[in-house]
Amino acid sequence: MAAHEVLAVVLQIRDDRLSVLLWRRARPPFEGRWVLPGGRLGDLEGLGESVRRQLAQKVDVRDLTHLEQLETRGEPDRHPYGRMLATAYLGLVPAGIDPVIPCDTSWHPASDLPPMGFDHAAMVHSGRRRLRAKLSYTNVGFALAPPEFTMSQLSRYYRAALGHDVAATNLRRVLLRRGQIEETGRSVPSGRSGGRPAAVFRFRTRRLEITDAFAVLRPPPED
Amino acid sequence: MAAHEVLAVVLQIRDDRLSVLLWRRARPPFEGRWVLPGGRLGDLEGLGESVRRQLAQKVDVRDLTHLEQLETRGEPDRHPYGRMLATAYLGLVPAGIDPVIPCDTSWHPASDLPPMGFDHAAMVHSGRRRLRAKLSYTNVGFALAPPEFTMSQLSRYYRAALGHDVAATNLRRVLLRRGQIEETGRSVPSGRSGGRPAAVFRFRTRRLEITDAFAVLRPPPED
Repeated sequence: MAAHEVLAVVLQIRDDRLSVLLWRRARPPFEGRWVLPGGRLGDLEGLGESVRRQLAQKVDVRDLTHLEQLETRGEPDRHPYGRMLATAYLGLVPAGIDPVIPCDTSWHPASDLPPMGFDHAAMVHSGRRRLRAKLSYTNVGFALAPPEFTMSQLSRYYRAALGHDVAATNLRRVLLRRGQIEETGRSVPSGRSGGRPAAVFRFRTRRLEITDAFAVLRPPPED
Repeated sequence: MAAHEVLAVVLQIRDDRLSVLLWRRARPPFEGRWVLPGGRLGDLEGLGESVRRQLAQKVDVRDLTHLEQLETRGEPDRHPYGRMLATAYLGLVPAGIDPVIPCDTSWHPASDLPPMGFDHAAMVHSGRRRLRAKLSYTNVGFALAPPEFTMSQLSRYYRAALGHDVAATNLRRVLLRRGQIEETGRSVPSGRSGGRPAAVFRFRTRRLEITDAFAVLRPPPED
């Protein structure tokens, strides 16, 4: 028999940095260290239900655009007080909103984590890796971006999530070719003085899809 | 507190069908039904360690070319005798070998499952879906194929795993372009009378890689 907890790696692009929502423990073990939101699985709830309930204590879960199961860790020594398994979820909040969070909770750059408790830093790392991978073969960018954006903004979000430079012109070409984004028909003044107005785009769907171009492996279109 | 079990969805292409390794329960609950190999997590073992130990009772784990965590299910009513969480792994065995298995265990077509116990049929479905997705954006085909193969053989494996037709010429073009496979320089007689000899290929690496062509999102090559 083992206790089971659910945890959430909630990521958001804030000030052009991929950030993760952490709270500061007020009691041992790991008192004063930063940890992921979450807690014990209740007797009568499922895992997904539990993570939504526990997240709701830290952030309005309606602000999440995506939530998926990330991994379960069960190393016998991962909790100093006894056997405790943990199922981590990956949650995404779109850029540009500032969710209300309690005073023991704050956002931290995912690439520059504060001292963390348990194996939670490894879970943040898993979450970043999952997000990076999914950005390359799915349309999960919809969950990081606000509903509408310019390519210059979107390339900054991708750069923050991927950790390397992404040219706006290349990104535009690839995402249009894959049918991930479309023009809204509107434009906004360019940030640069004298620049042309910048076209405003949106994701075509806000439902997760594999958009890989490996068309030969796709099922034939249904009649 | 809840009990925790680990289970394995072990898939292999057998006679051109995607097949799953199941065993027949000899006692209640679900006596006589088919279930996934696995069992209780031991007090002193991690999840990955546990699934390897339990799988070893059904199949030689050295026959596995790939093993990854698939999902954890924790619906409160998933086990009729009390709370039981389950972490399922996806394991792959290459085509062309016939592992020794015990007499209560056998291979079943993944698309035509026998009556199954618990939520194990849903886990088989998750495993098929994960495999299908990974075939489109990774080189996981290496884990389904024997070390060397003709494109005609490989396209049959892909067809079996994906559930729809895959033309050998298209598959060859895409996998070569993505750098997944290479020619061995050898050829074998074509199966068809009068046909040209068929070139023999192999996967370039047997380590899982994302081979998606979304090059704009790749980090720049390191010096």
